[in-house]
Amino acid sequence: MKYDPKILRQAPRALSTVADRLERSEILTIAYDVRARAERGEDILNLTVGDFSSREFPVPTALSSGVIEAIEQGHTNYPPAPGLPETREAIVGMCARRLGLEYPIESVCVVGGARPAIAGTYLSLVDPGDVVVYGLPSWNNTYYAAITGAEAVEIPTHADRFFFPRPEDLEPHLGRARLLCLNSPQNPTGTVIPSEDLARICRLVVAENERRRKQGTRELFVMFDQVYWALTFEGVRHQTPMELVPEIADHAILVDGISKGFAATGLRVGWAIGPTDVIERMMVILTHLGCWAPRPEQRATAKLLNDDAHLDDYLTSMRTRVHQRLQLVAQGVEAHRARGWNVECIQPQGAIYLSVRLDLIGRKNRRGQILKNDEDIRRHVLDEAGIALVPFRCFGVHEEAQWFRASVGVASVDDCASIEGRLGRALDALD
Amino acid sequence: MKYDPKILRQAPRALSTVADRLERSEILTIAYDVRARAERGEDILNLTVGDFSSREFPVPTALSSGVIEAIEQGHTNYPPAPGLPETREAIVGMCARRLGLEYPIESVCVVGGARPAIAGTYLSLVDPGDVVVYGLPSWNNTYYAAITGAEAVEIPTHADRFFFPRPEDLEPHLGRARLLCLNSPQNPTGTVIPSEDLARICRLVVAENERRRKQGTRELFVMFDQVYWALTFEGVRHQTPMELVPEIADHAILVDGISKGFAATGLRVGWAIGPTDVIERMMVILTHLGCWAPRPEQRATAKLLNDDAHLDDYLTSMRTRVHQRLQLVAQGVEAHRARGWNVECIQPQGAIYLSVRLDLIGRKNRRGQILKNDEDIRRHVLDEAGIALVPFRCFGVHEEAQWFRASVGVASVDDCASIEGRLGRALDALD
Repeated sequence: MKYDPKILRQAPRALSTVADRLERSEILTIAYDVRARAERGEDILNLTVGDFSSREFPVPTALSSGVIEAIEQGHTNYPPAPGLPETREAIVGMCARRLGLEYPIESVCVVGGARPAIAGTYLSLVDPGDVVVYGLPSWNNTYYAAITGAEAVEIPTHADRFFFPRPEDLEPHLGRARLLCLNSPQNPTGTVIPSEDLARICRLVVAENERRRKQGTRELFVMFDQVYWALTFEGVRHQTPMELVPEIADHAILVDGISKGFAATGLRVGWAIGPTDVIERMMVILTHLGCWAPRPEQRATAKLLNDDAHLDDYLTSMRTRVHQRLQLVAQGVEAHRARGWNVECIQPQGAIYLSVRLDLIGRKNRRGQILKNDEDIRRHVLDEAGIALVPFRCFGVHEEAQWFRASVGVASVDDCASIEGRLGRALDALD
Repeated sequence: MKYDPKILRQAPRALSTVADRLERSEILTIAYDVRARAERGEDILNLTVGDFSSREFPVPTALSSGVIEAIEQGHTNYPPAPGLPETREAIVGMCARRLGLEYPIESVCVVGGARPAIAGTYLSLVDPGDVVVYGLPSWNNTYYAAITGAEAVEIPTHADRFFFPRPEDLEPHLGRARLLCLNSPQNPTGTVIPSEDLARICRLVVAENERRRKQGTRELFVMFDQVYWALTFEGVRHQTPMELVPEIADHAILVDGISKGFAATGLRVGWAIGPTDVIERMMVILTHLGCWAPRPEQRATAKLLNDDAHLDDYLTSMRTRVHQRLQLVAQGVEAHRARGWNVECIQPQGAIYLSVRLDLIGRKNRRGQILKNDEDIRRHVLDEAGIALVPFRCFGVHEEAQWFRASVGVASVDDCASIEGRLGRALDALD
């Protein structure tokens, strides 16, 4: 039997409503295009992907040796549905020691990365038509709202508040919301939510649930995606909703994993922490979807999280190396601002990202074409200088904000140091 | 912050409709109960889990060495969304050489096990209210129908057709169906669909789609879960819908993985093969859900599937060892049938399962209690003889069929040889 994919169809077939409405990730589309150009030999500084090069950022040795040991010991069969007990215990211990959060093991569900934990939070809480609230830019909440059929209420944010929604912007929408999604350190902005804002938001949620309790109506939950929590720089402190406002704990789900802080995106271990009833139901849904973390990697994660000295060493080095790269990119951009160009960045606070503004709409390129929008700017710096960025538009922003995400996970120090020269070429090519 | 899970609630909180309607897997509930009894020191012959003991059934060395090599080479970052190219190529090659199916690489999507491939098939094709048809007993289709909000049309089957739906049983329902689900070798029955039945069913599907094409209505798809294809015994031949009826290929999705044939349930590598438009959309959905296979395990899977000599050696040994165990269980049961007890099995054809009938309803146990249903029988053989089975009721069968699944994946040869004596104890304890 030979399958011929070139079947002639007059129009695409109707698949499911979800399949037909769900966009392919624009970020991945740009990333694959950039990779293809690099593979064709173009000189590209790839700042597009939220991933790591294992040469620049190897995983901790506890993870690599942990996987190898587990394989050698025959840990090749199913883990229990909520995760290996030792992995859940290690997560509980790490949270207590590093985040000041004491949860029982029943509050922890180990899954195949942070994405399933996000999807599981949506699927276990949100019905079609429910209101989900999040700020823009936002990583992928648009897609999760589409999958669950939720009504997305998207709150514009501003650079002066580090692209987080302000409590006063959220307040009018919480009365009808089912889920509020926050992410800090934030993808795509590389910023950390100011703790006074986070605390005020949490108090609004607690007050709203107090009202609903009296009315007997469905509760409001908060999903707090902290998968980049281990990566903050220079005195910026990561804080969780439940640390700031403990009363929120029965309505808050933490999303976390080894993917980002430990450069282990391909090992597929993440987890959700929250109220036991939500975690139990999430586990049932994700079991049927098969979003389990592989067993050897679960063993390795337990080994890593239990080894505080190793964790400290690794994270100190990781933070230094990520920060160094982000600073080089920031300095490269700011050098041109000092020369009078309308470009800027937000100083790096966390994650592996930098928010870069390239206010170039209205300028003419060498072919005499006016840059009309963010996509024109993206193509201009890519074509002229090999700088590959992702516009905030790919993170749901509707207007031409001229803000872009720069990711340093696959960039070397030399790569990052090249930004000043590269950006100079792109700017000089403008009229 | 200390989270106290003992929050007093007057009633369970409303979560999402899906979360609230989705049952926890009954199979896992029984399996965990049995494991807990074994851990308390009870003498249990655990035939409940669709899993493997890595002592009895280690994974192929290509898998274990492949994971280790990949880790050592730094393959720790994201795989591409549809899977590593080398893994998809290896799957294409294996299908061509072993199943006679020629698919392009675009027809293959690598995911984190066979479950995500099943979930992805449902999610990319089925809308709420769509009709999904499958035979009973069935592994987990009930849950996938619940997740997608589908109307499940469940077709009773019979031992004399090896618990597969007959074409004539399906025919009345195909006219309104969106998805027909088949699984062979079948979980929980350990049987293989007779190829003449499969061919007739496929021709019905092709004819139905021909009608719909003329009417311009949505098509009928077939999901064929063949995750146990590598495990068939003594001349029983596994065949696929598209091998028998090539015209079905544009409406058929194969679900497969390394989990069962290669005893690698914990390594989380599976795949879907089908029409490129369906695979492309499924990949988008599963990307957002994060159901990716870990990168080292994807590398190892490519290494395994490309090594035909190693595959042949491993599968020859695997089939022999699984078959030996299933035969021992079958002989143990049949020995009591020969003594006049109303018990029987279906001779093992494939997978790691045996269908065992224990027709004991109406008999009295030692406490004088009459066994009234399948659950009573299950508890009786567990309490009296430590034989742990899963009733077909856990696979959706509605009546008290007195059929049970015996799984030999974690059983030694000695364990399996003990069934005759054990079952004798349980039967002798009946009045």
